[in-house]
Amino acid sequence: MAKLNWGMIGGGEGSQIGPAHRLGALADGHFTLAAGALDHRADVGRAYGQRLGIAPDRAYGDWQEMLAGERNRPDRCDLVTVATPNATHFEITKAFLEAGFHVLCEKPMTVTVEEGEEIVRIAARTGRICAVNYCYSAYPMVRQARAMVRAGDIGRVRLVVTSFSHGHHGDATDADNPRVRWRYDPATAGVSGQFADCGIHALHMASFICDDEVERLSADFASTIPSRQLEDDAMVNFRMTRGTVGRLWTSSVAIGRQHGFDIQVFGETGGFRWASEQPNQLVYTPVGGRTQIIEKGESGLYDDARRLSRVAIAHPEGFPLAVANIYCDLADAIRGTPRDGLPSAEAGLRSMAAVHAAVASARAQGAWLDARPPMLR
Amino acid sequence: MAKLNWGMIGGGEGSQIGPAHRLGALADGHFTLAAGALDHRADVGRAYGQRLGIAPDRAYGDWQEMLAGERNRPDRCDLVTVATPNATHFEITKAFLEAGFHVLCEKPMTVTVEEGEEIVRIAARTGRICAVNYCYSAYPMVRQARAMVRAGDIGRVRLVVTSFSHGHHGDATDADNPRVRWRYDPATAGVSGQFADCGIHALHMASFICDDEVERLSADFASTIPSRQLEDDAMVNFRMTRGTVGRLWTSSVAIGRQHGFDIQVFGETGGFRWASEQPNQLVYTPVGGRTQIIEKGESGLYDDARRLSRVAIAHPEGFPLAVANIYCDLADAIRGTPRDGLPSAEAGLRSMAAVHAAVASARAQGAWLDARPPMLR
Amino acid sequence: MAKLNWGMIGGGEGSQIGPAHRLGALADGHFTLAAGALDHRADVGRAYGQRLGIAPDRAYGDWQEMLAGERNRPDRCDLVTVATPNATHFEITKAFLEAGFHVLCEKPMTVTVEEGEEIVRIAARTGRICAVNYCYSAYPMVRQARAMVRAGDIGRVRLVVTSFSHGHHGDATDADNPRVRWRYDPATAGVSGQFADCGIHALHMASFICDDEVERLSADFASTIPSRQLEDDAMVNFRMTRGTVGRLWTSSVAIGRQHGFDIQVFGETGGFRWASEQPNQLVYTPVGGRTQIIEKGESGLYDDARRLSRVAIAHPEGFPLAVANIYCDLADAIRGTPRDGLPSAEAGLRSMAAVHAAVASARAQGAWLDARPPMLR
Amino acid sequence: MAKLNWGMIGGGEGSQIGPAHRLGALADGHFTLAAGALDHRADVGRAYGQRLGIAPDRAYGDWQEMLAGERNRPDRCDLVTVATPNATHFEITKAFLEAGFHVLCEKPMTVTVEEGEEIVRIAARTGRICAVNYCYSAYPMVRQARAMVRAGDIGRVRLVVTSFSHGHHGDATDADNPRVRWRYDPATAGVSGQFADCGIHALHMASFICDDEVERLSADFASTIPSRQLEDDAMVNFRMTRGTVGRLWTSSVAIGRQHGFDIQVFGETGGFRWASEQPNQLVYTPVGGRTQIIEKGESGLYDDARRLSRVAIAHPEGFPLAVANIYCDLADAIRGTPRDGLPSAEAGLRSMAAVHAAVASARAQGAWLDARPPMLR
Repeated sequence: MAKLNWGMIGGGEGSQIGPAHRLGALADGHFTLAAGALDHRADVGRAYGQRLGIAPDRAYGDWQEMLAGERNRPDRCDLVTVATPNATHFEITKAFLEAGFHVLCEKPMTVTVEEGEEIVRIAARTGRICAVNYCYSAYPMVRQARAMVRAGDIGRVRLVVTSFSHGHHGDATDADNPRVRWRYDPATAGVSGQFADCGIHALHMASFICDDEVERLSADFASTIPSRQLEDDAMVNFRMTRGTVGRLWTSSVAIGRQHGFDIQVFGETGGFRWASEQPNQLVYTPVGGRTQIIEKGESGLYDDARRLSRVAIAHPEGFPLAVANIYCDLADAIRGTPRDGLPSAEAGLRSMAAVHAAVASARAQGAWLDARPPMLR
Repeated sequence: MAKLNWGMIGGGEGSQIGPAHRLGALADGHFTLAAGALDHRADVGRAYGQRLGIAPDRAYGDWQEMLAGERNRPDRCDLVTVATPNATHFEITKAFLEAGFHVLCEKPMTVTVEEGEEIVRIAARTGRICAVNYCYSAYPMVRQARAMVRAGDIGRVRLVVTSFSHGHHGDATDADNPRVRWRYDPATAGVSGQFADCGIHALHMASFICDDEVERLSADFASTIPSRQLEDDAMVNFRMTRGTVGRLWTSSVAIGRQHGFDIQVFGETGGFRWASEQPNQLVYTPVGGRTQIIEKGESGLYDDARRLSRVAIAHPEGFPLAVANIYCDLADAIRGTPRDGLPSAEAGLRSMAAVHAAVASARAQGAWLDARPPMLR
Repeated sequence: MAKLNWGMIGGGEGSQIGPAHRLGALADGHFTLAAGALDHRADVGRAYGQRLGIAPDRAYGDWQEMLAGERNRPDRCDLVTVATPNATHFEITKAFLEAGFHVLCEKPMTVTVEEGEEIVRIAARTGRICAVNYCYSAYPMVRQARAMVRAGDIGRVRLVVTSFSHGHHGDATDADNPRVRWRYDPATAGVSGQFADCGIHALHMASFICDDEVERLSADFASTIPSRQLEDDAMVNFRMTRGTVGRLWTSSVAIGRQHGFDIQVFGETGGFRWASEQPNQLVYTPVGGRTQIIEKGESGLYDDARRLSRVAIAHPEGFPLAVANIYCDLADAIRGTPRDGLPSAEAGLRSMAAVHAAVASARAQGAWLDARPPMLR
Repeated sequence: MAKLNWGMIGGGEGSQIGPAHRLGALADGHFTLAAGALDHRADVGRAYGQRLGIAPDRAYGDWQEMLAGERNRPDRCDLVTVATPNATHFEITKAFLEAGFHVLCEKPMTVTVEEGEEIVRIAARTGRICAVNYCYSAYPMVRQARAMVRAGDIGRVRLVVTSFSHGHHGDATDADNPRVRWRYDPATAGVSGQFADCGIHALHMASFICDDEVERLSADFASTIPSRQLEDDAMVNFRMTRGTVGRLWTSSVAIGRQHGFDIQVFGETGGFRWASEQPNQLVYTPVGGRTQIIEKGESGLYDDARRLSRVAIAHPEGFPLAVANIYCDLADAIRGTPRDGLPSAEAGLRSMAAVHAAVASARAQGAWLDARPPMLR
């Protein structure tokens, strides 16, 4: 099968996100790194692209140059990844979709709800794929969890409880470090700090596994380090379309929690929990029965859990291969055999609507507000 | 040292709570079971009391008979435990306090806030001990946690996150079982279901470890099994006097969680977590450092953690000995050397105020309300 | 039910073992501490006994005095616990058995195999109970494990792997500390160090759960701290009567292991593991199936696991209550309703035979030797 | 940096090992899959190679054809991976080394000790790299462990205890399954079953982390399923050059253990443990101190642990990326900047010597035998 051509915008040398995408895109051999505009410093980006093996004429200085260079090539990129600062996601994604490229956009997809709605409309109109990198949803055991819910293995879902709470911004003496400070400053981060940064992964996960959407929510935000204008800790209660009760805690001052992303789902006939630090197990309890460990790679898993795993049971697969699973799903979709599960532009839009609703609720003393984007109500 | 005379009201044959109290009171040799009114069926209670070794004339048929029989004996009970149905705690506790007995009352201490205030006043006036059985707070590593907070080992506490969520009432086919149903029926359980049953243990624990009090709260209640009038799942956000942010989740439909009581505390310079299912460890992380396991019995623990442990490091001590620690503290207090840490009538009162505030908040769509009893504002 | 009279030899003030026995004997109300010779310093022992509530005439100065004082009393001790230094176990146990007392002896029951055989013969001849305090075997979930093996739940047992390895003697700078040094000096400890101290608990556990006996063994001993004459680390391979393969590792220099006692049992149709630091769970896997967590207190446990537990599921019970379970079984046996499972003098004898066989094997470069006492071959 | 050309022998469609190598070689962009002889069925292998993107003229029918085709190409393979059945490793590895190729050979490198010695000599003579795929040694936290030992962080190593015990061959009803049976049949598997298959990974790991070599050993082998001629369970005690005591247990009938590879290392001033199912943590205890969790990605790790990790702390990296780390080290070595740590032909030879010594010892009732290959004594 011919490899697909892949281009990347952002993710330059020294970034965390660049290597994760490159590893994810290349690991399974579906994509070739064909083009890139990797750095906001044009020369640095061109040089780095060439060091990564991109041909000189496709190692671009910025995204506009890349768009111009790629749009009319016969071997143009099949997929473009947007991994630039948050505020630029919208215009770049929009431009490449309109030029007929498939796009994988880093989260958050946009800054405003209106931008998100526009992306959804453009994707629908152009028929292009616009995916958002909610990569945790591509772990095999998360896919197993979703398949179990869909199959009715735990009955109607009553309750979902999730947290994404770490402590890496808990050191007040480090709070003025520019790498940390921008996240809690509305001038650079927008309306929300920790909830927009990590909380939306958890919120997406709740929707993804429960196969349902968040309808309304009530939020409590706190800035536990007083110099911060935006929240570093948030609790969001929510209700889903089918009545499921949701509880989401996110924090960046939970010292001792390293990654701290986990989810518990409780239905009428069973419950389970999954944690991103032990991603290869799903801990499941049928009502009235014993707790069981479901292992990635065991026999009898649902198809989505099986096909997205590469090595045998108890050989752990980690975060980079969850990203790679997103790229596997993208390759399938581009080749015309789309899989259920790829996080869509609609998912990206719903996140932004939830962020804005949570901010408004927190300001209104926890008032319950509609969490849905207007176009999807 | 002479043993103290102990009497018990309730906790008859077949109850869960009776054996836990007897084991707790007798384990360390501080008390002798001298009197009891153990069952609401007078004959059954008298017979059972005698089988437990109580002298026939002190195996009473009901608490009034016991009060009359004990109040003028020279060898009267030094301590009376009240382990009767919730609605009767108030009158029995009141009567024995007024007759000059020390009392250990099961939680909840009362049903209304007004009753709670009255108990606090009576205890103050009589100079008698009125303790409430928040026994989890007597685990050695919980005492260590409190001592660490007091010593400033984690700096000012920014955030406390606790849950007491199990799944033992998650089977809808069992919801009409009388043993379960009464808990969710206002006629028998009062204003609150799961929050009043388990949540207040977690709320007390937050106050106990943080050495602070809950000031205001906002609640979200749900009855995930529709036939229930009272909540089987609740989320309570709160703020403490010194600004600490609190988050408390309690559920009885979290299938797969067996006991499910845990607490995480995050301060300026460190964080820790403790769980009732592994009660002999405290998992501690100093800011910027590695996570460490603090073990019950290790050298260098604070005094309260050391004195309330009986066997060497890594020899686990469990729930019955946490109850026993409450009785050790009671024995010390009765003998005139009171220890800090025994949960007081004030703690029992604060719980009732928080329950009523949470119920009102949940009804008011999560409005933030004062959680303090009027007399302690 | 009338309480039984209990006497204790050894276990004086400041010992680890005394409190564990007193808590164990008194916790469930079966015994009263009626007599004692608690210290090798007669005056100290008498005074301490009286402080513990023993009547002055039964607070003895040494065991001979206690034997003389108790043997003809109408209310004489129903049970005597021997918790003195190892080398004295034999003569005291022998004397009390011959005088018609039931005895609980601390492990090791004797120093030589011949002494062990004599105790077995005396117990048989007198009809008295002589139990040995292999208290770990009395944890509810260990009893569950044994019951599962007996019921055939894991088929024929192929393999048992156990370790009892801690690091508390791993500090060479502390090796001359008298509290540590005597354990590795043949003049004080006899023929074996760590294997006789901890290894025999693991060996007994293997026999107990597998319901089988060790037949032959091969040992490798090491003194990893060179100044030690006796082993501080040992590996013993063995075979049981029905062909089960056994592997036992014991160490006192395994720094970081706190208690370190665990056992894994593998049969034809399943396997399980248990660890003394999480004693309330048994982790079970049926062949071809998922790993399950069996919880103390869950419904459907075998009778021995159920009756030796006091509080509900997920309320942990720890080491002191395992000791208490030994005393429960003793009370039942003394009252004429013996339970299966109480570790007998034969178990104590088998341990000594295994210790001597292991020492001889280690000296003979791991030669396979008969592990059975001559009288039980 | 130009990509290196990589060729693969074996690892055809449907094999476990092929995808792991391809993922490992390609993940970080160091290699291009340039040539291959992937299947013992020539046509099948050629077709599969082309589907994987190999040019038709380099998709070979067998290894001889590949050797002939590659040896004189200007763009010939920089590295050849040998992932064929065990019995063929020797001749293929030998032929490619002699033709001047660098080789990565699957374990076991050879079947006999003599063959192993010949490979070592050829590698030395030709100056080519001959590495063996002991991929577990390339996990970042294993490299951290080795670096800590070398830096003296735990003092002289007294004791190493390792196991590689799973239960995947524990079902006797599946024992005649050809996929399982060949492993326990001398005609197909050689002199050893489980020890040669999994045990040597653990033995290599012990040497690797302790930075020392196994000198002599004593073995106990068992065939717990009676139809098996070769062992399915083995215990090997050993001593290393600097006196370290070693204990290694390996089993394939340990039902419930999924992967079951772990190692504990105990030195004079500390100990640690690592397990392949939670590969991103190293659990470390300094003597007299608390147990600490060392996390992959934390600040302050030794260089080898840092450079072989791709994503941030608490983002797990799994087995395929451990294989990828071997390929990273190979790329560095081929490019002239060799790293310490790549498992060498000498390591492969030592394993074979240990296998033969263990088999001989088990047959001689556990006699202690020299474990070293003659050429390295």
